[in-house]
Amino acid sequence: MKETLIRKIKELSLKDPVMVEGLPGVGHVGKLVAEHMVEELNAEKIIEIYSPHFPPQVLVQSDGTVKQVRNEIYGCDRQGNGPDLLLVIGDYQSATNEGHYELSGIFLDVAQTYGVRRIYTLGGYGIGQFVDKPSVLAAANKIELVEEMKGYGAVFSENEPGGGIIGVSGLLLGLGALRDLDAVCLMGVTSGYLVDPKAAQEVLRVLCRALSIEVGMQALEERAKEMEKIIGKLQEMERASAPYECGGDEDLRYIG
Amino acid sequence: MKETLIRKIKELSLKDPVMVEGLPGVGHVGKLVAEHMVEELNAEKIIEIYSPHFPPQVLVQSDGTVKQVRNEIYGCDRQGNGPDLLLVIGDYQSATNEGHYELSGIFLDVAQTYGVRRIYTLGGYGIGQFVDKPSVLAAANKIELVEEMKGYGAVFSENEPGGGIIGVSGLLLGLGALRDLDAVCLMGVTSGYLVDPKAAQEVLRVLCRALSIEVGMQALEERAKEMEKIIGKLQEMERASAPYECGGDEDLRYIG
Amino acid sequence: MKETLIRKIKELSLKDPVMVEGLPGVGHVGKLVAEHMVEELNAEKIIEIYSPHFPPQVLVQSDGTVKQVRNEIYGCDRQGNGPDLLLVIGDYQSATNEGHYELSGIFLDVAQTYGVRRIYTLGGYGIGQFVDKPSVLAAANKIELVEEMKGYGAVFSENEPGGGIIGVSGLLLGLGALRDLDAVCLMGVTSGYLVDPKAAQEVLRVLCRALSIEVGMQALEERAKEMEKIIGKLQEMERASAPYECGGDEDLRYIG
Amino acid sequence: MKETLIRKIKELSLKDPVMVEGLPGVGHVGKLVAEHMVEELNAEKIIEIYSPHFPPQVLVQSDGTVKQVRNEIYGCDRQGNGPDLLLVIGDYQSATNEGHYELSGIFLDVAQTYGVRRIYTLGGYGIGQFVDKPSVLAAANKIELVEEMKGYGAVFSENEPGGGIIGVSGLLLGLGALRDLDAVCLMGVTSGYLVDPKAAQEVLRVLCRALSIEVGMQALEERAKEMEKIIGKLQEMERASAPYECGGDEDLRYIG
Repeated sequence: MKETLIRKIKELSLKDPVMVEGLPGVGHVGKLVAEHMVEELNAEKIIEIYSPHFPPQVLVQSDGTVKQVRNEIYGCDRQGNGPDLLLVIGDYQSATNEGHYELSGIFLDVAQTYGVRRIYTLGGYGIGQFVDKPSVLAAANKIELVEEMKGYGAVFSENEPGGGIIGVSGLLLGLGALRDLDAVCLMGVTSGYLVDPKAAQEVLRVLCRALSIEVGMQALEERAKEMEKIIGKLQEMERASAPYECGGDEDLRYIG
Repeated sequence: MKETLIRKIKELSLKDPVMVEGLPGVGHVGKLVAEHMVEELNAEKIIEIYSPHFPPQVLVQSDGTVKQVRNEIYGCDRQGNGPDLLLVIGDYQSATNEGHYELSGIFLDVAQTYGVRRIYTLGGYGIGQFVDKPSVLAAANKIELVEEMKGYGAVFSENEPGGGIIGVSGLLLGLGALRDLDAVCLMGVTSGYLVDPKAAQEVLRVLCRALSIEVGMQALEERAKEMEKIIGKLQEMERASAPYECGGDEDLRYIG
Repeated sequence: MKETLIRKIKELSLKDPVMVEGLPGVGHVGKLVAEHMVEELNAEKIIEIYSPHFPPQVLVQSDGTVKQVRNEIYGCDRQGNGPDLLLVIGDYQSATNEGHYELSGIFLDVAQTYGVRRIYTLGGYGIGQFVDKPSVLAAANKIELVEEMKGYGAVFSENEPGGGIIGVSGLLLGLGALRDLDAVCLMGVTSGYLVDPKAAQEVLRVLCRALSIEVGMQALEERAKEMEKIIGKLQEMERASAPYECGGDEDLRYIG
Repeated sequence: MKETLIRKIKELSLKDPVMVEGLPGVGHVGKLVAEHMVEELNAEKIIEIYSPHFPPQVLVQSDGTVKQVRNEIYGCDRQGNGPDLLLVIGDYQSATNEGHYELSGIFLDVAQTYGVRRIYTLGGYGIGQFVDKPSVLAAANKIELVEEMKGYGAVFSENEPGGGIIGVSGLLLGLGALRDLDAVCLMGVTSGYLVDPKAAQEVLRVLCRALSIEVGMQALEERAKEMEKIIGKLQEMERASAPYECGGDEDLRYIG
């Protein structure tokens, strides 16, 4: 296997679907939202993507069987109840720069095959400290989209993220523009230290408004509550140890 | 030489062989087992694989001649005394992620050419401390294989290995499933600090039961005894130096 | 997108243009000069280059829209007022060695398509300390060019830069020679710690003489003045902290 | 330029030439010998090789002109005074593993085109301390060559070099064997800290015996004397500073 393999799992007829991408990234915000949507909306897997750009690895599942790391595309026929959806999820993003470009190109090919005209990419924006009031930072690949997104509660902040947007969530906007596809990136503001289901809820709220659909939030809410408890304990520990230790945050990354 | 080179050494007619892979990895457990089997079963070399994904290196042998680093496939016609075998061994695994995918694809091509229907991949599972009671952790690419392997004494432990299985031993399961090939990974539990012939013996025992064959173990036993002595001395040294030094383990890696 | 994409934006008829390359590098000297020229001379964008060798990233602009990182070539019809120009600018250089070679080849292809016979590449030469008297170090790919450049005020210093010239600014000379294209690299001597508009001014002065054109310098001058103030403050801080701290320079890199 | 470029400079008719490779490596021993031979024997450049696997760099020469980094092959018609020669030299070896394989393949292609039947690769073997009595360690790709080389004064030492031979000097033996080309690696034993013309002299002595030719050594001798002086001073400094400092050797690497 020298080349990326696109494996069609199921034919599904969708009408002008919207693509939503949520691959792993900062705070796993995008991944939480997209996987939650796959589950809540009973989306069906239509494509699996295997690539030498992913880590050379299988994951061991709880029943003792393995899963080859991959990206997946799910389809969701909403039967007029809001737009049809194409959901992009996965275990990893590419381990190489070149792979990010190749995989983004593949996602855009799929989008065009299905007649997608708008893409939402989901991610987290790490600010290095715990977030009190959740918010969703956005960027878009057309100026008209900026005003529209503000209407859904997304925030645009000059020069943020200062480092740009890295990975598939950025490239779908940048390379999508070259194919004249509208694309918006919604980033849940998060500490960046932990998996952040609270930021994910906020992203999902903005996205639901943009898509004019409703998605049950209970699973994310429960996960957010658990995480709040963990954070509470961590902050307590931090306060207790602060006079003696610093940089302890380092060890808390991605618990969850 | 820009591409991987598959060099056929000998034609060998095998009937429904089982493939066994034991390339270098944690504790060199898989390598010890597979090379031991090649020797004990008088397997014959049928294929050499050279690749730009291996380190750009020759090994110097004791007679002053060199050996280009490579992977090799041996065949073993068991004449009805258990299943015929294809044994995959080598000096190195790929030095790149992409190479792991390419080489796994090549091994699977060879497997399919020979009509292989089951693959065993062998490795070590490093737990960071010396192991008192040897055991063999397993993972499989089909749920039916899990129960079967338990019958041979392999252990399945939820969420272990937590990091998944990396390299050819993992990919032959994951990519093998895409070709509908049954595959099992047997991992000898080991410290991960030293070459571990004792873990290799345990893996070989489980594998022999699975294959319904017998393989002499004397060479591995002798090597295990030597290693026990080394470990005894190391532990003595560690106890002696413990009050003054820590982290000394670091220097003991892969003595053997 | 697995391959570099050359996107033609506009046809422009140019007569024997000179190519000037100013991509990001030491002190961003080349980038400052080339982008300043694009602006001052009202050059028109004719080509955009996207590549998997660039970081997988979009930049977020002040209006909330994104820009896919890329290199760009601008054309400038000077209508007889000095030579026509092809200006190469961009957000990044290649993130891989191979990409530097590929992109340099593409720039040379464009140069040959437009009938370019001479190329100036612009960069900085970092000397690790603040520069009192600005100067421009040069290198060329033909011996006749060395004398000519001295006439414009460029300095050639034996064995400098000792490490050679790395990236597109070097390769356009080296690979350009293989296509019999004259090429000169002009390097503004700079500390290497900060974006250096003063070094950029000096490079622009030499380049204007070489091209027999005039380019307004006000924007660069203003930026240089601001930077002088920052440097003044930094040096003050350094003097103040010197007895207690060393290596503080490290933190000042590329402020600007 | 996406691919390695083989540029023919001159046609030269050679009879059964022997190939000698001396690219940069440990102590620059091989490079010193091969470049010395090119000069002493008035060899003529026949091929230049440019590759994206080399660093993306030009070297600045003393006259202000640049040189694209490359490998070069020189031919030497000895007119019956010993065998004709093909000498491989260069500024760098490949910066990637894959490049080592590709370039070795190219050198072997050239060798076969010219009817080469034997290859000598030259290098250094770093032992981490200054060498009192110079010697030449060897390895070969056929057992018959081992005895022959001992006759010329080369030493074969079991399990040395323990790490094998890395880079082109190793691959020409390993990949050469696959093409049935005889190849020997001669390694001057050296500290590995400094460019070592004394080790180079010893390698040249063994090589001259093997080739039955004579090559003037004066230039290497002079360089060795200069280096002896530097080493003398370094050892003096080391003795003086020994009670206070350790690990000072680190800073002496590749002075010369």
